[in-house]
Amino acid sequence: MTIGIIGLGLIGGSMAIDLKRRGFASCVLGVEADPFHAEAALKMQLCDEIVPYEECLDRCDIVVVAVPVGTAVKMVCDILDHFQKADTPDKIVIDVCSTKEQINLSTQYHPRREQYVSTHPMAGTEYSGPWAAMPNLFDGRACIIANQEESSPKALKTVEQLYDVLNMRLIFMSAASHDVHTAYVSHISHVTSFALALTVLDKEKDEKHIFDLASGGFSSTVRLAKSSADMWVPILSQNHDNVLRVIDTYIEKMKAFRDAIADYDQDKIRSLIGEANRIRKIIR
Amino acid sequence: MTIGIIGLGLIGGSMAIDLKRRGFASCVLGVEADPFHAEAALKMQLCDEIVPYEECLDRCDIVVVAVPVGTAVKMVCDILDHFQKADTPDKIVIDVCSTKEQINLSTQYHPRREQYVSTHPMAGTEYSGPWAAMPNLFDGRACIIANQEESSPKALKTVEQLYDVLNMRLIFMSAASHDVHTAYVSHISHVTSFALALTVLDKEKDEKHIFDLASGGFSSTVRLAKSSADMWVPILSQNHDNVLRVIDTYIEKMKAFRDAIADYDQDKIRSLIGEANRIRKIIR
Repeated sequence: MTIGIIGLGLIGGSMAIDLKRRGFASCVLGVEADPFHAEAALKMQLCDEIVPYEECLDRCDIVVVAVPVGTAVKMVCDILDHFQKADTPDKIVIDVCSTKEQINLSTQYHPRREQYVSTHPMAGTEYSGPWAAMPNLFDGRACIIANQEESSPKALKTVEQLYDVLNMRLIFMSAASHDVHTAYVSHISHVTSFALALTVLDKEKDEKHIFDLASGGFSSTVRLAKSSADMWVPILSQNHDNVLRVIDTYIEKMKAFRDAIADYDQDKIRSLIGEANRIRKIIR
Repeated sequence: MTIGIIGLGLIGGSMAIDLKRRGFASCVLGVEADPFHAEAALKMQLCDEIVPYEECLDRCDIVVVAVPVGTAVKMVCDILDHFQKADTPDKIVIDVCSTKEQINLSTQYHPRREQYVSTHPMAGTEYSGPWAAMPNLFDGRACIIANQEESSPKALKTVEQLYDVLNMRLIFMSAASHDVHTAYVSHISHVTSFALALTVLDKEKDEKHIFDLASGGFSSTVRLAKSSADMWVPILSQNHDNVLRVIDTYIEKMKAFRDAIADYDQDKIRSLIGEANRIRKIIR
């Protein structure tokens, strides 16, 4: 099978590596807007060829849209248009974006909607670009497929096979549910991490202290603050309502801690920490 | 050298392991208030013997106080009293607590203050108890020695050797500076992590969603929320002023994100993330 991957960054590049070496893809065609990234992707052999966008759509069986979600919304529609014009009913397009509602709303009445499968492989690191791509990134992680009833059974089955090859656990839910739950479990932790970095950089005027004193705990909590604006500005903007709701709850919790500490209320601090410790049973 | 360790939890237990196997301690005496922990520590061979507190002070050359900081403040004074009564000028007591100002204020006029070295080995995990102890925990991490001029040169030299054996990088600063900088770089990240856990547990009524959807990023950001109340209630209480100051700045940064998202101000979100990304250069 020929797989076209648009955007050879962390996610697209890592998919390219494992789909090829695990035999799902006989050929991987890459499309990359940034010439510097394109050259790096070729040198690192993330794909067999870098080709123009149109050529990729013409030659591949499955197109993976792995660009930031603002661009992806328009691109998936454009690819479905192309499938319609070329009358290629067996081709499939998937996206791998972290918000799902807007892209599903935009495509819902497209006559070729059935050829689109809306997915979110929940794996990644705080790094980006072709240099961040790595083998085995997806193994054992969750992949959400949103609004699966809007895809054709055949397209859905092929995409399930693709994620099987990547060793992902499939979870099915509506695009709306996806955006609520990822705001609660994923998007908020990026915002808290960005805010932590801003706070430390603000309070610690001498960066040497941060470097010297950063423990493993601080490093792990601030890690996501290295994540790129190109990816996160559109996610936070598209998932606006859910993200605001969870930020408001989060600020309330921070204030509860603040007040308990300000009041020297050790019982209250203890009870807040005890409640937070419930996460031990859920996250290993 | 005979080392007495009071409190065989994560820090005390891990010190016991490496000081013994690396030859610094010929004998490790453990003192453990919790009989269940005492039994576990013996079974795991964290120490050679579990002995009563007084016997430990009589027999050892160096006492390591590795109990929560609320208890440690009184205990270090009590041990210095004991050194005075028994007239043992060569014995040394160190503590390993995460706040340093209160313990230094409490001991500053003690006639045996010179026999105390105030230290904070900045290593750890989110786990506690003797089961959390592990070899190599301290290798390559920073250890702060506070108010070193108040310790005798001889005691200081011995303690420097002890931390050399643990492969720690020594950093010297005043107890007051220590508490400011650890509030900024360490204590705040525990509070943000506790608040994140509380938020997710509040918003996600169905814990299965958290379990299913938790990515590596979320897990790493929420990891510190597993930390124990016994350790963190006294730290947050003792470092009250510094912790409140950094929490207030943090809440401001969260609100800046909130407002930028609420206003659909993508340029502002981008600039906040760009600023936060500066942490890339400091934390690997």
